[in-house]
Amino acid sequence: MTLPTLLTGVVPPVCTPLTPDREVDTASLVRLVDHLVRGGVNGLFVLGSTSEVAYLTDRQRALVLDTVVRHVGGQLPVLAGAIDMTTPRVLDHVRALAEAGADAAVVTAPFYTRTHPAEIARHFRLVASRSPVPVLAYDLPVSVHVKLSAELVLELAGEGVLAGLKDSSGAEGAFRSVVTGKRSLPRQFSVLTGSELTVDSALAMGADGVVPGLGNVDPEGYVRLHAAARAGDWERARAEQERLCGLFGMVRAGDPARMGGSSSALGAFKAALHLRGVIACPATAEPQIPLSRQETEAVGKHLAAAGLL
Amino acid sequence: MTLPTLLTGVVPPVCTPLTPDREVDTASLVRLVDHLVRGGVNGLFVLGSTSEVAYLTDRQRALVLDTVVRHVGGQLPVLAGAIDMTTPRVLDHVRALAEAGADAAVVTAPFYTRTHPAEIARHFRLVASRSPVPVLAYDLPVSVHVKLSAELVLELAGEGVLAGLKDSSGAEGAFRSVVTGKRSLPRQFSVLTGSELTVDSALAMGADGVVPGLGNVDPEGYVRLHAAARAGDWERARAEQERLCGLFGMVRAGDPARMGGSSSALGAFKAALHLRGVIACPATAEPQIPLSRQETEAVGKHLAAAGLL
Amino acid sequence: MTLPTLLTGVVPPVCTPLTPDREVDTASLVRLVDHLVRGGVNGLFVLGSTSEVAYLTDRQRALVLDTVVRHVGGQLPVLAGAIDMTTPRVLDHVRALAEAGADAAVVTAPFYTRTHPAEIARHFRLVASRSPVPVLAYDLPVSVHVKLSAELVLELAGEGVLAGLKDSSGAEGAFRSVVTGKRSLPRQFSVLTGSELTVDSALAMGADGVVPGLGNVDPEGYVRLHAAARAGDWERARAEQERLCGLFGMVRAGDPARMGGSSSALGAFKAALHLRGVIACPATAEPQIPLSRQETEAVGKHLAAAGLL
Amino acid sequence: MTLPTLLTGVVPPVCTPLTPDREVDTASLVRLVDHLVRGGVNGLFVLGSTSEVAYLTDRQRALVLDTVVRHVGGQLPVLAGAIDMTTPRVLDHVRALAEAGADAAVVTAPFYTRTHPAEIARHFRLVASRSPVPVLAYDLPVSVHVKLSAELVLELAGEGVLAGLKDSSGAEGAFRSVVTGKRSLPRQFSVLTGSELTVDSALAMGADGVVPGLGNVDPEGYVRLHAAARAGDWERARAEQERLCGLFGMVRAGDPARMGGSSSALGAFKAALHLRGVIACPATAEPQIPLSRQETEAVGKHLAAAGLL
Repeated sequence: MTLPTLLTGVVPPVCTPLTPDREVDTASLVRLVDHLVRGGVNGLFVLGSTSEVAYLTDRQRALVLDTVVRHVGGQLPVLAGAIDMTTPRVLDHVRALAEAGADAAVVTAPFYTRTHPAEIARHFRLVASRSPVPVLAYDLPVSVHVKLSAELVLELAGEGVLAGLKDSSGAEGAFRSVVTGKRSLPRQFSVLTGSELTVDSALAMGADGVVPGLGNVDPEGYVRLHAAARAGDWERARAEQERLCGLFGMVRAGDPARMGGSSSALGAFKAALHLRGVIACPATAEPQIPLSRQETEAVGKHLAAAGLL
Repeated sequence: MTLPTLLTGVVPPVCTPLTPDREVDTASLVRLVDHLVRGGVNGLFVLGSTSEVAYLTDRQRALVLDTVVRHVGGQLPVLAGAIDMTTPRVLDHVRALAEAGADAAVVTAPFYTRTHPAEIARHFRLVASRSPVPVLAYDLPVSVHVKLSAELVLELAGEGVLAGLKDSSGAEGAFRSVVTGKRSLPRQFSVLTGSELTVDSALAMGADGVVPGLGNVDPEGYVRLHAAARAGDWERARAEQERLCGLFGMVRAGDPARMGGSSSALGAFKAALHLRGVIACPATAEPQIPLSRQETEAVGKHLAAAGLL
Repeated sequence: MTLPTLLTGVVPPVCTPLTPDREVDTASLVRLVDHLVRGGVNGLFVLGSTSEVAYLTDRQRALVLDTVVRHVGGQLPVLAGAIDMTTPRVLDHVRALAEAGADAAVVTAPFYTRTHPAEIARHFRLVASRSPVPVLAYDLPVSVHVKLSAELVLELAGEGVLAGLKDSSGAEGAFRSVVTGKRSLPRQFSVLTGSELTVDSALAMGADGVVPGLGNVDPEGYVRLHAAARAGDWERARAEQERLCGLFGMVRAGDPARMGGSSSALGAFKAALHLRGVIACPATAEPQIPLSRQETEAVGKHLAAAGLL
Repeated sequence: MTLPTLLTGVVPPVCTPLTPDREVDTASLVRLVDHLVRGGVNGLFVLGSTSEVAYLTDRQRALVLDTVVRHVGGQLPVLAGAIDMTTPRVLDHVRALAEAGADAAVVTAPFYTRTHPAEIARHFRLVASRSPVPVLAYDLPVSVHVKLSAELVLELAGEGVLAGLKDSSGAEGAFRSVVTGKRSLPRQFSVLTGSELTVDSALAMGADGVVPGLGNVDPEGYVRLHAAARAGDWERARAEQERLCGLFGMVRAGDPARMGGSSSALGAFKAALHLRGVIACPATAEPQIPLSRQETEAVGKHLAAAGLL
């Protein structure tokens, strides 16, 4: 399908199931997509950070996207990350994902290189001008080491360079500036929060949707939360959000003396999907460190406490 | 040629000349290689940060490497960067560069992802175990946002995982720990500084060689500096180094209100190569900001002051 | 008065009016306190970042606190910052502020020194064990360069070391962990947000109160916002919050090419208080850069747009 | 004595011995000063980071300075840190140290506050204009979270605002810019490195002196190193430096899982001074974590290996 004029609702960043030897497990990926669609999500975001895009080879990225686009068959919009260091490399990914049938490209500021606000603006303008599909900005300072300012996002939105924003910056004040600022724009602009923990707040501010990594594990939870917020039932939204905050505790399952935050959080999501029977193997890509049996059991306890096991 | 047991001397990171429409200008690249070889350098490092590797598409990276390897024809060792976010993606580049005839791969710690010392060690071990060519670690915290500790480098060197280190961290104390620590290693290990400004210090400490971006502009200067240091003539080394420090001032030619440090420094090196008649066009890759005419004239003044124009 | 068992509501961090020669203007300070009390606030926080505590000499800190404590005369709780680098220096301030009649001390993690989670925990335990008044933790990573984890805050709260938290970290997910975690504590614990822009979100999560710098300029606005939230009228809370977000735009009045964020934001608050007739002089402490006439006019426009001038 | 026109040589930052209950141990401090003077140092720097200035109350700072100034009795220049957050607080310390007889004040850029290059320049100009003694800039990004640029330092040196620089930034390229740039200044300007590990390099570049924390433990070593460098005997300088680098390994005695880098490094220096019989007690100030018996033994092994025990 084409991107709706305004993308809204729950758009989980889809995990990439791997086989024990770190190949894309397409059968598990299809099951995961079914699990998400059954859960009532409004779109899918593949090849984002939660998808381990930084660890997937170009061949694997293509396989993931192709598998998902074919399987979804236009029922839902499919957004795809075009995650690379600079404009020319990003554009190679954008062309590939558009050809493969993605409905939109999700693009960060340049990284690895030393950069500048003027270069970031130029980057988005160049990418958008050459992209066959709409471009959403991906604000992820923990990876990119720069924050997209609300002013820049609104300027690029006003020009039609950007069709939306996926904000994983955790800076809620700046996020709110975009949400309220977009009301004065001459065109639609989708503002999506990447937070797992403050979705009710973001929706109360006026955000259009949510892209929660934890939505892989419990899509129904985020769909209920979104529905409660849309209905103005903030008490119910808060209760659902707090339940999901408890579930999110699984991301700390991995021992920080042994592994980084990505190994722990993505390992936990995949362990949970494995324990729930959705994917065949909980392996994460190299060089991430796998969860131990004990750590995996801790993930299981989180699932049980949330009524998901 | 194969990598010498111990790589030493001046190994400049080769700029990537581009055409006005940002294609690799292979004719200029060949002239640049000739300019460096004539200057007396001991090896070439292609596809590093100074080569704008972060901006080159995979096709362009292959073209650069192929052009240089063919033209050099084994006269000098050619090192090539395999710059990407994580192990699987780095390995794709490593395989490609080995097939193209590079003598060694230069590899950073993972970036973009959140990482951990154990994951960094695992990354280098995995890459080296699957690489057909020797692997050098590339320590570049300004891009990678993590510093390789001297302890880790020496541990991996002792295991034979790493054949050398290119240290662009600017942390001279830690660099010295590697230089002195390597004396106790059971095998050869090349310690190269990426600094332009403290080469005499690094060589006095016992560094094996130097990988100076400014060596594109004035290879003879670094070759003289290296020779003076090898001869123990520290006064002459210091005088040459100070001349090169003055020349290095060109990297601040670009207005910091208008562009980032990469646009300014790489723009200046290319402007200097253009003014010296080595390359046909001073363009840098997108989204970098070009130097203005006035800024280019400032580069010319630096060349003139150093007797290079 | 003594600190209430649970401090709640609007507790603005009180600006410190200065004379043109940078002495504490006690007459203006008294007028500012009256302005806040009339505005309906529930407590006062003196000697925090908004009070320019980092710029006040010990003599000036004492004068500010004494002026406010005497004038308030026990009508409202008065919290005071004990802002210094490490335990012994903080304790000197804590003793002084307790003697001067402050009801609680607000204390950051150590700064300037390199520190460690175990040292931060030890710092708070030592300070609290020797403090005559309750201690609140002040989480301000932009100044202290370390984030207090929710786990540590809850651990110290459970032990009775901390009586509350003033969270200016902007990390709403972690803030929420404290807000929900405190429900299981065996004792009261006040969780206050230092945000100006997400007060409705914080109160919806269950925060006890708010410490907004902008509350100096518009205390009634934050009091209305708090009341609406307490009444469960989230639409009204949101509308008031959005009005205050617009007003907060004044903090960007100062030209970032000429001054830092502190000069601009504190300069704007003081300019607004001066324009509203509350304080006699808008001077900020040295070495901050004063707002220009044009920048001050921009502050006035923000006031006018918000109906405050 | 008054500050010499050009301060040169070895100027150790003097540790502050504490009693077991964390009072200044003036008897040990006097013995430490004698140990340093006997070692041949050219000046003393009290109340710097190595002196735990961030942990000393104002009363303790005064006691330290008074003890040292009286005991030295003008034999050597005594520099004193005026370490605080901003101009007015720094000036209080500057006035106190000048009155107590210090020959110069050592001052950082503002910290804790958000700051800006224009505010940093203004800070140094204001402090110097009101200081009764010469002012040296202290560049310590690890504590201050900002780097003083070579351009700013040379500009302030040229104006006579600064009498010198103590550079603990570890950025040797920028340090070199100051060392070479100072040759064009119309007045004397002392450039001192705070490095322990690259003193031979700094002196070869042309630095005037060195302020090594490790100089507390082995002043003779740094005095020999300095003398060799002054004599142009770079081989001997390098050998001495490498011996000191080995000794410096003691700073990693403390377990990083249990304590921060300051606890470990300052704990090691004090343990070494205690083991060498110079000070009565190895205690560091709170909230630093003490070294364990085993960790203290590791310090002893470093001393023994260097022939100091």
